[in-house]
Amino acid sequence: FEYDAPSMKTPVPGPKSQELKKQLGEIQNVGAINFFCNYEESRGNYLVDADGNRMLDLYTQISSVPIGYNHPALMKAVTNPNNLSAFVNRPALGILPPENFPEKLIETLLSVAPSGMTRLQTMACGSCSNENAFKSMFIWYRVSVLACSYVCLFKQAPGCPDLSILSFMGGFHGRTLGCLATTHSKVIHKLDIPSLDWPIAPFPRLQYPLEEFARENSQEEARCLEEVEDLIVKWRQKGKPVAGVVVEPIQAEGGDNHASSDFFIKLRNIARKHGCAFHADEVQTGGGATGKFWAHEHWGTDDPADIVSFSKKMLSGGYYHTDELQPDKGYRIFNTWMGDPSKNLFLSEVLNIIRRENLLEEVTRSGKALLQGLYELQTQYPHLLSRARGQGTFCAIDARDDVTRDNLLLKTRDKGVLLGGCGERSIRFRPALVFKEHHAHQFLNIFNDVLAEY
Amino acid sequence: FEYDAPSMKTPVPGPKSQELKKQLGEIQNVGAINFFCNYEESRGNYLVDADGNRMLDLYTQISSVPIGYNHPALMKAVTNPNNLSAFVNRPALGILPPENFPEKLIETLLSVAPSGMTRLQTMACGSCSNENAFKSMFIWYRVSVLACSYVCLFKQAPGCPDLSILSFMGGFHGRTLGCLATTHSKVIHKLDIPSLDWPIAPFPRLQYPLEEFARENSQEEARCLEEVEDLIVKWRQKGKPVAGVVVEPIQAEGGDNHASSDFFIKLRNIARKHGCAFHADEVQTGGGATGKFWAHEHWGTDDPADIVSFSKKMLSGGYYHTDELQPDKGYRIFNTWMGDPSKNLFLSEVLNIIRRENLLEEVTRSGKALLQGLYELQTQYPHLLSRARGQGTFCAIDARDDVTRDNLLLKTRDKGVLLGGCGERSIRFRPALVFKEHHAHQFLNIFNDVLAEY
Ligand code: FES
Repeated sequence: FEYDAPSMKTPVPGPKSQELKKQLGEIQNVGAINFFCNYEESRGNYLVDADGNRMLDLYTQISSVPIGYNHPALMKAVTNPNNLSAFVNRPALGILPPENFPEKLIETLLSVAPSGMTRLQTMACGSCSNENAFKSMFIWYRVSVLACSYVCLFKQAPGCPDLSILSFMGGFHGRTLGCLATTHSKVIHKLDIPSLDWPIAPFPRLQYPLEEFARENSQEEARCLEEVEDLIVKWRQKGKPVAGVVVEPIQAEGGDNHASSDFFIKLRNIARKHGCAFHADEVQTGGGATGKFWAHEHWGTDDPADIVSFSKKMLSGGYYHTDELQPDKGYRIFNTWMGDPSKNLFLSEVLNIIRRENLLEEVTRSGKALLQGLYELQTQYPHLLSRARGQGTFCAIDARDDVTRDNLLLKTRDKGVLLGGCGERSIRFRPALVFKEHHAHQFLNIFNDVLAEY
Repeated sequence: FEYDAPSMKTPVPGPKSQELKKQLGEIQNVGAINFFCNYEESRGNYLVDADGNRMLDLYTQISSVPIGYNHPALMKAVTNPNNLSAFVNRPALGILPPENFPEKLIETLLSVAPSGMTRLQTMACGSCSNENAFKSMFIWYRVSVLACSYVCLFKQAPGCPDLSILSFMGGFHGRTLGCLATTHSKVIHKLDIPSLDWPIAPFPRLQYPLEEFARENSQEEARCLEEVEDLIVKWRQKGKPVAGVVVEPIQAEGGDNHASSDFFIKLRNIARKHGCAFHADEVQTGGGATGKFWAHEHWGTDDPADIVSFSKKMLSGGYYHTDELQPDKGYRIFNTWMGDPSKNLFLSEVLNIIRRENLLEEVTRSGKALLQGLYELQTQYPHLLSRARGQGTFCAIDARDDVTRDNLLLKTRDKGVLLGGCGERSIRFRPALVFKEHHAHQFLNIFNDVLAEY
């Protein structure tokens, strides 16, 4: 089914992509366009572009393709006549769900619910998942007194209290205004957009490999935790109490910054001690790429969080939460569509494949090969690479500087491997769950060539 | 193809819906659930529920079904092998669009672009459409100085300036935090959620029928426009200048409040005079239900707005804008998916059907029958109904009070017609574009029975 190697016909973007970019430029800003794709011809781990170049894809549409391109199981789901109605009739799920909705949720999303979480709200993307997770935390935080709340229409207490969400420097939780107030990964995301006065804590800046710097790292984590506690107290005193703390198990857009299980467990306890909800944003880390279905499973606790949000590889957005965070009334967490059951059909197939093909084990195995290879390369090219790190295939390595990083990405792409950047000078690896050991070696060989020539 | 009348077997919700509601209640709050649907069996204007009740649907999933349930053209689009890849491979449109993307946009969304708008940004729902439309206005408003902007990560001027969006009392623009700061239709939407200090102007409270109260209404509109101008000046003095004014051509969730073309044209001019962008939110009004493709076409100007946002009946979200509002750089308006090409496939079919079957003329015709019938009913039952109003089939009528309204909705539903409420005591009519004159009469007869028995 799959191709067995990259095949390059032109530099990327090729002439056809360039022509299409000019066309699209008449319609919208195309500053972020890499190239145009031929999705029909793409297969598994290989993305084919408009010029017929076939690349091994370690970026997968910003980490959002779970089991590769054109997976036969997904094609079958579209052509299955029983599914036709789910594609054609998008319901307003919050008021008029299809009769199989509870059953489908149980079969799909609830079958992979994080520990301690029995409640599930579907949404359509990472942003509305996080926006509504924040709203759930605000609602939970306040004992709501509907009767005296008309003033909230005019934005005064007590209807619209000055509550806040604590987030971390380097964190990314989306780009709608509420999410953006907790996003601090790149300047360009926030420039010119008004924000909210919410507290931002430092995220530990660890040294890698983690095992070698255990003492330094644990000091750094302690410093950050102390700062978190200070900020919670300070914002309460300011009259803008912290209703929730939001954090990614691995800061992804911000440069693949890791922290220890100990850090997250202590953070969760600090949140609890101060009466704040704890929200693990698994939009990028969730769905298997770390070798566990949820990255927070690596923390080894059965009470990881109050809310876990997801999207991307899960195909549908949404969030799980504990019983306590259930809003008291209907229409408080609400919008027209509340997700999309047709995406759930695909998720159902994805979960089947993950189980049937033991993809989490495969990820662990190919991730080990990938990280091992990265360690070797940074030993071999210490002037170019450092700080290799990762969990499963969710790996990253730093280049000397941003210019080198960007050059390496382009040169590797021209040799047939699509990678992504993140943070200031990191390269991130986000292959699909069907990425095998031999794909890791294929990439490592090509990358080695690029580095040798650099 | 379609059924020819409602057919009721049980009161609604019937036993099966009640059972399913209990099941779903174990997973999430079900306070807003009306009943469960059998979408497979639904056809055209008729929605079938889990208990086999078949209702004439004048609410259409909160106004989001353009050409009825299970339209053959949409079914064909799913089973067309050429479309398979678009369903199975969801791209990150902002970086790796499919090669047919520019062509498909031209064929679909751009073929119905509002006057003066050559630029188009796709999004996935009404909320991200409005959130990003706001961001575009903020970016446009500021001459961006990237170099000196690092401070915006810490939320201080000049990176994150205190800019604002002016909205209207009774307006609804979504429920994510940015949108919610401009939404003022119901208390429950905003309760407990922190907001932004943005100006809110009064929306004209007109008397109906509009022709009979021309003088009073124009005074009321003048009062509101004056207030708008005052607020723009006041917020500028406060150091939170208004970057944009957002308004619905007909306030939908807030109770179907209309204003004259004169009002909107003057409002647009006030915005321009003060250097604010003008954003027409057509998420609910767009797509044909008013008898024109966009409600703002009724204003009769070829320069209606700087930004027009859409979603719902358009199946994909997004917004059109003028050249000037184009962001200067990539990644400023960005998220993972930036819409969903598979929804565009459906839109393409919808636009074909609208053209081939002259649905806008049909809507005008059936809307006339509907409104005429509502006028007659309010004359016949003046103690129950008043203020009938509408454009095309986008109609509403007020009940005596909220309890009466809610009772009328339930009684009408038990007789086989699904309606929605809006505002404090309004009933809104939001049929699909395939709603014909005979459907209007079918509804009017049933509604008349309900009113006679009341
Ligand atoms: S905000 Fe998530 S789909 Fe629009």
